[in-house]
Amino acid sequence: MTLIVQKFGGTSVKSVARIRNVAGIIAKAARTRQVVAVASAMGDTTDYLVKLASQASASPDRRELDALLATGEQISIALLSMVLRDMAVPAVSISGPQLGIITENVHTAARIVDIKTEAIRNHLDSGRVVVAAGFQGTTAAGDITTLGRGGSDTTAVALAAALGAEACDIYTDVSGIYTADPNIVPTAKLLAEISYDEMLEMARVGAQVLHPRAVALARRHGLPVRVRNTFDPEHMGTTLRGADQMEIYRPVSGISVDRDQARLAILQVPDRPGIAGEIIGALAGRHISVDMIIQAFHEGGSVNDITFTVKRNDLAAARNLLEQIAGTVGAAGVLADPDVAKVSIVGAGLMDQPDIAATMFRELGKARINIKMISTSDIRISCVVSDGDSEQAVRLVHDVFHL
Amino acid sequence: MTLIVQKFGGTSVKSVARIRNVAGIIAKAARTRQVVAVASAMGDTTDYLVKLASQASASPDRRELDALLATGEQISIALLSMVLRDMAVPAVSISGPQLGIITENVHTAARIVDIKTEAIRNHLDSGRVVVAAGFQGTTAAGDITTLGRGGSDTTAVALAAALGAEACDIYTDVSGIYTADPNIVPTAKLLAEISYDEMLEMARVGAQVLHPRAVALARRHGLPVRVRNTFDPEHMGTTLRGADQMEIYRPVSGISVDRDQARLAILQVPDRPGIAGEIIGALAGRHISVDMIIQAFHEGGSVNDITFTVKRNDLAAARNLLEQIAGTVGAAGVLADPDVAKVSIVGAGLMDQPDIAATMFRELGKARINIKMISTSDIRISCVVSDGDSEQAVRLVHDVFHL
Repeated sequence: MTLIVQKFGGTSVKSVARIRNVAGIIAKAARTRQVVAVASAMGDTTDYLVKLASQASASPDRRELDALLATGEQISIALLSMVLRDMAVPAVSISGPQLGIITENVHTAARIVDIKTEAIRNHLDSGRVVVAAGFQGTTAAGDITTLGRGGSDTTAVALAAALGAEACDIYTDVSGIYTADPNIVPTAKLLAEISYDEMLEMARVGAQVLHPRAVALARRHGLPVRVRNTFDPEHMGTTLRGADQMEIYRPVSGISVDRDQARLAILQVPDRPGIAGEIIGALAGRHISVDMIIQAFHEGGSVNDITFTVKRNDLAAARNLLEQIAGTVGAAGVLADPDVAKVSIVGAGLMDQPDIAATMFRELGKARINIKMISTSDIRISCVVSDGDSEQAVRLVHDVFHL
Repeated sequence: MTLIVQKFGGTSVKSVARIRNVAGIIAKAARTRQVVAVASAMGDTTDYLVKLASQASASPDRRELDALLATGEQISIALLSMVLRDMAVPAVSISGPQLGIITENVHTAARIVDIKTEAIRNHLDSGRVVVAAGFQGTTAAGDITTLGRGGSDTTAVALAAALGAEACDIYTDVSGIYTADPNIVPTAKLLAEISYDEMLEMARVGAQVLHPRAVALARRHGLPVRVRNTFDPEHMGTTLRGADQMEIYRPVSGISVDRDQARLAILQVPDRPGIAGEIIGALAGRHISVDMIIQAFHEGGSVNDITFTVKRNDLAAARNLLEQIAGTVGAAGVLADPDVAKVSIVGAGLMDQPDIAATMFRELGKARINIKMISTSDIRISCVVSDGDSEQAVRLVHDVFHL
């Protein structure tokens, strides 16, 4: 009998009524195969628990925060198992300590180091549906840990890989991955397939359906992952797989936009080795992540402009820090541009067709949309434009590539 | 260094503000000794979880119900540990699977079969305060169980006994055990000491401070238990210990009243062996507990009246069942008396002074309070009276014994 792992996010288990809907999906799958269901915490439970923690302490102990947050999934999986039992599906909930997901001894963002599948296998072999708590594991010593961002997605993919599942279905509130955000481009189409690498680029630049960490893990194991709609479960959604296994191989699969961006430049930085690393390192020290980075040499060669993007609400802190650094290293000054957006096209076939970048730039130019920065990878081309231009840019590019 | 176990009930940890108060009590104790703190779920959490379960299923699977309910204590102990850490007290929360409380494989009312103290000892020996989840354990296979009624009290006493603690302090919202309910008898006095047996009789007949199961466990281990007030922590409260270790040995220690009582009689039951057992067994089969039982022979000896008390909201079901039985066995009929109360005096020295019972009955008679049933044990005399007479009865008896 084949095995499938199904993951249900917070909106899919937001209420007991929605848990009943999820149980229907699980029960149907359990008729023909072994099922491991992974659930997140119900809707707002995690926010409620975080609020309690913030009342208890300005900086809650991280071991205790993990123990607290882990109760969110323990509640949803117990309720889901009760509903399944009422439907005569022999379900058992298992949480952190019984789950067999062993993590490093780091709290609130632990990485998985080992998965002991024996307990789950015993339940499956006894004909039971296993309802597993997402987002959590334990240290080798038995302390509860949580996996941090994208935790439940990662739990589902990791369990699917460790158990040799035929696929991992990620149930969410959309029907899959679209060629562009349907709110911006009404003609956007649902993709039947997308490669892991394309999905990674899509997720990193703004598509929020599936966490990059889970995508990377699926890629490592060659595990098919399907993004499906909890409220339209018959729809097959979008399947993620290796580019070499895809039936259709498009140069451009999709377009995404990240509007939570701001641009900063530090001007005429004296050119000495390691200075860019120092600047980025100082930002990282304040937990400010830098996204695109461009270093442009001035003619003559003794000074550089270093330009990069940060998340918009990091702008003020980043600007302060950069102004201090500019004084220290003898740069000419700092420029800040708070309202920019990053428009990206993603496609496994981009590399093979060099005219695609030219087409994108030309199309934006015709519409007098100024491109402020460009960065590329093997399967992605990103342009930073004014935030006000970003939606028009997405629509133009979507049209020109006939998506 | 000596060790103390402190237990805090749901009202003591009802909010983060109250958890802060509790943390102050623990922090003070931790200055001079090792501390294991046992906490219940916050105020209404358990009710909220039970409500969720009832939405999920009309008869929730008991394994899953235990997993669900256990999250209540996991939340309160994590928050309590956070607050303690903020006060520079090195606290760690431990719940079911790490606690080492192994129970039988029965859900929602499991009994403890073993306590593995190694994990707790390791934390204590490393200088940590252990904050343990009350009410829960695990089966040998690692499934979460709950201990049922009085669960957190039982957890605290069981851990104290297993760890060889000098005492177990039960913090609640009253200052200890009184000679009578202060709401009924304004002159009631706080007892400095009470024996385990007296406390058992007090608890069974209506004093709700400490669960009889925990008292019985403390008695078995000769463990001193102190009932103290969370909101007046300097007060020493009432100490429970063996009667042989008590400094003051009173004939009457206290008076309690249980107003949640109804009386039933099945009249002129033919006298054949085992018939009383059959009747009580039939009630037990419907989960109706019978308290006092009196079997009175009629003159001539061929029929009996069997009279007993049940909880008031079991009366209708018990009456229905008895009427069926009366028809089957050929009894004359069933009488029901919905509004009675049981007034009891309790004292380790009752046995030695036979005039005490006579004094009690005479005093009630003088006030024209009709005694409907009487039962006695070595340390208790209980009279069933009309509920409307019960408060006056308590005050009269309290006065006559100069409590």
